[in-house]
Amino acid sequence: MPSPTRSIRPAAALALLLAAPAQAQDDPAARYRETAGRVLGRALVDEGGWAKLEHLTTRIGHRLSGSPGLEKAVAWAHEGMKAEGLEGVRLQGVKVPRWVRGREWARVVSPAPRELPMLGLGMSVGTSQEGITAPVVVVRSYEELDALGRDRVEGKIVAFAPDWEGYGRTVRFRSSGASAAARLGAAAVLVRSATGRSIASPHTGALAYDADAPKIPAAAITVEDAEWLRRMAAAGETVTVSLFMEARLEGDADSANVIAEIRGSEKPDEIVVMGGHYDSWDVGQGAHDDGCSSMAAWQALTILKELGLRPRRTLRVVLWANEENGLNGGKAYREALGSDVSSHVAAIEMDGGCERPVGFGFSVTRPGEPRPGGRARDSEPADPDAAKALATLRRIGTLFDGIDAAPVKWGGGGADISPLTRDGVPGMSLDTVGEHYFDWHHTQADTLDKVSPADLRRATGMLAVMGYVLADMPGRLVP
Amino acid sequence: MPSPTRSIRPAAALALLLAAPAQAQDDPAARYRETAGRVLGRALVDEGGWAKLEHLTTRIGHRLSGSPGLEKAVAWAHEGMKAEGLEGVRLQGVKVPRWVRGREWARVVSPAPRELPMLGLGMSVGTSQEGITAPVVVVRSYEELDALGRDRVEGKIVAFAPDWEGYGRTVRFRSSGASAAARLGAAAVLVRSATGRSIASPHTGALAYDADAPKIPAAAITVEDAEWLRRMAAAGETVTVSLFMEARLEGDADSANVIAEIRGSEKPDEIVVMGGHYDSWDVGQGAHDDGCSSMAAWQALTILKELGLRPRRTLRVVLWANEENGLNGGKAYREALGSDVSSHVAAIEMDGGCERPVGFGFSVTRPGEPRPGGRARDSEPADPDAAKALATLRRIGTLFDGIDAAPVKWGGGGADISPLTRDGVPGMSLDTVGEHYFDWHHTQADTLDKVSPADLRRATGMLAVMGYVLADMPGRLVP
Repeated sequence: MPSPTRSIRPAAALALLLAAPAQAQDDPAARYRETAGRVLGRALVDEGGWAKLEHLTTRIGHRLSGSPGLEKAVAWAHEGMKAEGLEGVRLQGVKVPRWVRGREWARVVSPAPRELPMLGLGMSVGTSQEGITAPVVVVRSYEELDALGRDRVEGKIVAFAPDWEGYGRTVRFRSSGASAAARLGAAAVLVRSATGRSIASPHTGALAYDADAPKIPAAAITVEDAEWLRRMAAAGETVTVSLFMEARLEGDADSANVIAEIRGSEKPDEIVVMGGHYDSWDVGQGAHDDGCSSMAAWQALTILKELGLRPRRTLRVVLWANEENGLNGGKAYREALGSDVSSHVAAIEMDGGCERPVGFGFSVTRPGEPRPGGRARDSEPADPDAAKALATLRRIGTLFDGIDAAPVKWGGGGADISPLTRDGVPGMSLDTVGEHYFDWHHTQADTLDKVSPADLRRATGMLAVMGYVLADMPGRLVP
Repeated sequence: MPSPTRSIRPAAALALLLAAPAQAQDDPAARYRETAGRVLGRALVDEGGWAKLEHLTTRIGHRLSGSPGLEKAVAWAHEGMKAEGLEGVRLQGVKVPRWVRGREWARVVSPAPRELPMLGLGMSVGTSQEGITAPVVVVRSYEELDALGRDRVEGKIVAFAPDWEGYGRTVRFRSSGASAAARLGAAAVLVRSATGRSIASPHTGALAYDADAPKIPAAAITVEDAEWLRRMAAAGETVTVSLFMEARLEGDADSANVIAEIRGSEKPDEIVVMGGHYDSWDVGQGAHDDGCSSMAAWQALTILKELGLRPRRTLRVVLWANEENGLNGGKAYREALGSDVSSHVAAIEMDGGCERPVGFGFSVTRPGEPRPGGRARDSEPADPDAAKALATLRRIGTLFDGIDAAPVKWGGGGADISPLTRDGVPGMSLDTVGEHYFDWHHTQADTLDKVSPADLRRATGMLAVMGYVLADMPGRLVP
C-alpha cells in the first residue's frame, strides 16, 4: 500500500509547499495574481486598443465639444461597444458649449513685418472684423503687470512672457491673464505657450474670464516669440502687433458621455468607474489628450469581457464629454447619481497622456475635508481608512512590477471624476512618465505618431487589472 | 660662493625640469599651448559674440538671399568690423537669386476639411491664383513612385512620406522629389519635413528642378501629416488637398560676402579663411543655421585682435552669402581668386549649428582625386601628406581637451568652401554634437533661444585657436 504522501501528485505537492499563509487571503496581490496574469498577458499582446485609437485619431481626428468630430466619435464608440456585446451601453446626454475658433491670425506690424504663429485660447472672444493693432507691452508676471498700471497698459496688447516654471505655474497666465490685463484696460493678450520645449508650436487651452473684467481676445504665441518679445523689450524696441480672431461662443450643443459596463455578479449596484475624456481641442488629433486613455479604458473592458471575467461589483467605463472647456460631462455624470454617490466604490481617470505608465495615484477625501493637493503626492494620508486603502492599492500595484509600474502614490484623481471625489468617492489616476506630454499638449502635434503601441498596451492592462480587482475585492476599497 | 644651481630661481628650475624634448618644437600643441590658453580663456568669458548674435537674430531676424534682412545684416557687419579696427574689411559683391515665398497655404478638402501646416520649398514655382486641388497619392520611396507609373500619378498631388533615415537620406525627396513626380505628370508635391523629431513644424529648404522635367510647386508638410497621409492611404481613404503658393523667382539681386582679416606678419599673401554662411531661410531667425557660426568666426577674429595676436599668415573671416539657395557667395569668393587658389593654406567652415562643439573634421583632396565622402569620416587618409596634416591637427586638437572637443576626424568641409577644397585647399569643419540641430533646421524655431551662450563661447575659442595656429605655424598644414 502506498504511503499517503505518494497519492499526492507532484504539482499538488509543490502547491502545498508554496501555499501562502492564512493572511494571504486578505492580500489582493495574492488573491488576484493568477487573474492579473491572464489579463495583463492578454493586454500586452492586444491589437484592438491600437486599432480603436488609430480609427479615432486618423479617421475621426480632433473632437472639440460641440463639433462634428466629437459627435462622430460618440456615435462610433456607442455602436462599437454595442457590437462588442458590452453591457449597459448608453449615451448620457450632456449639454456642452459650442466654442468656434473661426479664422485667426497675428502679425508683427513693426519694426519688421512678419507672421506671428498663434492659436486663439479656447473660450476667448474674437476681435472686430478690423482686428486689433496695438503696441505690445511685455510682462513676465502679474507683479510686473500691476507695476505697469493702467497708464502703460490701456489700449495695449499685453504679452505674458513668463519663465517656464512647469505646466502648473506657467499655465495660470493662459487661464487668467486675459482678465488681469483687461482690468487695466488692455485691448488683447498674447500668452507664452505652456511648454518647456518648443519647435515653434503654439499651444491652445481654455481661459476663464472673471465676471468683473471686460472680455478681451486672448491667444497663445510660441515660446520662441515670447522670448523674442522679451528681448525686444529689453532692447527698448516697441513691437506693434495686429491680431485678428473670429472666435465666438455659439451657445450650447447636445453631446453625451459614452458608457459601457460589465455588470457585477453579486453587487451590481456598487460601481467602479474608469475612463478618460473623449473631447479634445480643435487641433491635432487629441491622441495623448485624451484619446489614448479613452481607448485604453474601453479596451480594458473589452478584454475583461473576452476573458469572461465578471467581477462582483459593476465595472463601468465612461468616455467623458467636455473636459477641456466646461467639465460638463463629469458634472452630468455626478448629477445623474443624485444622492446615490455612495454607490461608487472608486473612480479612476487617466488624463496624463499615454507615455510610459509608471503607476497610480490615489486620494480619498471625506466630504468637507481639504483635498490633498499637488504637494501631497509624496506624503502619506493621515486618515487611517485612507492609509489602509493606500496599503491595499500598493499590494495590488505589485502586480505591475513586471511592467515597471508598481508604485501607488498618495495624491491622484482627475478633472472628470472631481465631482465624484469631492463627494467622497475614492479617486485614482493612472500616472505616466510625462517626459514629452507637455511638448505636444493642445497642439497640432498631439497625433498618433507620438503614441507608443507598447505603452498603450501596458496602460490598457493596468486599467483592466486595477478596475477588475477593485470591483471584485470582497470588501470596498474604503469602507 | 654660491653653487651654480643656487643662481637659478625656483620657477626657472621648474621650467628646466619640465622642459619639453627637442622634437616638441615641431609639436604645435607644445608650441601654441600658452597662446591657446590666453585665447580660449578670453573666449570662454566673452560677451561680445553673444551680443552680436542677439542683435543679428533679434533685431535683424532672418536673412534670405535677396531679402532686405540679408542686406541689413551685411551693412551692419561691415560697419561693425570697421568700427572694431579689423583689417581688410570689405564687401565682395555677389549676385544672389531673389526667391520670394509670397502667401501660401494648404488645406485638406476631403474627407474632413482642415488646414495643413506647410512651408513652400525654396526655389519652388507657385501655383496659379486658383491653386491646385487634387487627390493625394502617397509614396514612401522613388521605387514606389515609379511603380505607380504615369496612370496613377498624372494630375495628382504626390506626397513623399518616407521613413526617417537621417537627414542625408530623407532630404533627397525635398531636393529632387518635385522633378521625379513631375516626370510622371504630377500636379504638385508635398514632402515630409526632413527631421526625426517634430512638434508639427514644417521644415523648408531648397529643391533643385531637373532641366528635363516640368517645374511643379513643392511644399514641405509636417511629419505628423506625412504619417497621417500614410495611414489614410493604408486605410484606403483618398485625401484631397488644395495647395496655393505665390512663390516665384524674381531674378538676381546684389548682395555680398562680408570679409575682414588680420594680415599676416611674415606671409600676408598666404591665407587661412574661416566663416559661416550669413544668409538663412525666410523663417525663424537663422540662429543655428548659420548666424551663430558667422558670429563665432567674426568674434574669434575680434578676440585675436584684442589680444594683439598677429599670425605669420593672414587670417581671414568671410560671412558667405547665399549658401541656402545657390552657393553664389562661395563661388564668387573662389572666382575672385582666379589662379591664386594656392594662396589658401586652409579653409574652415562652421555650418552644423552651435550645439556643443565636439571637435573638427578635416579633408584634403589633390585636384582630380575623389573626395572623402560621408562614410570616410571614421576612416583615415591614404595620402601621406594628408595623414601627416591630420596628425598635426590632432595635436592641435589636444588643446581643446579641456572643453571636451579634442577629436579631429578625417572627413570635413562645408558647402561655402567646397569651391576651394575642390581645387585642393585643405578643408575643415567645426563639428557639433548635432543632437537637436535638425529639429530646428529651416523652421520658425531656429531662434536665439535654442543657442547656448556657453556653446557659442566654446566654438568662438576653437575657431580663434585653430585659425591662429594654422595661420602662424612655421610650415603650411599641407605642403
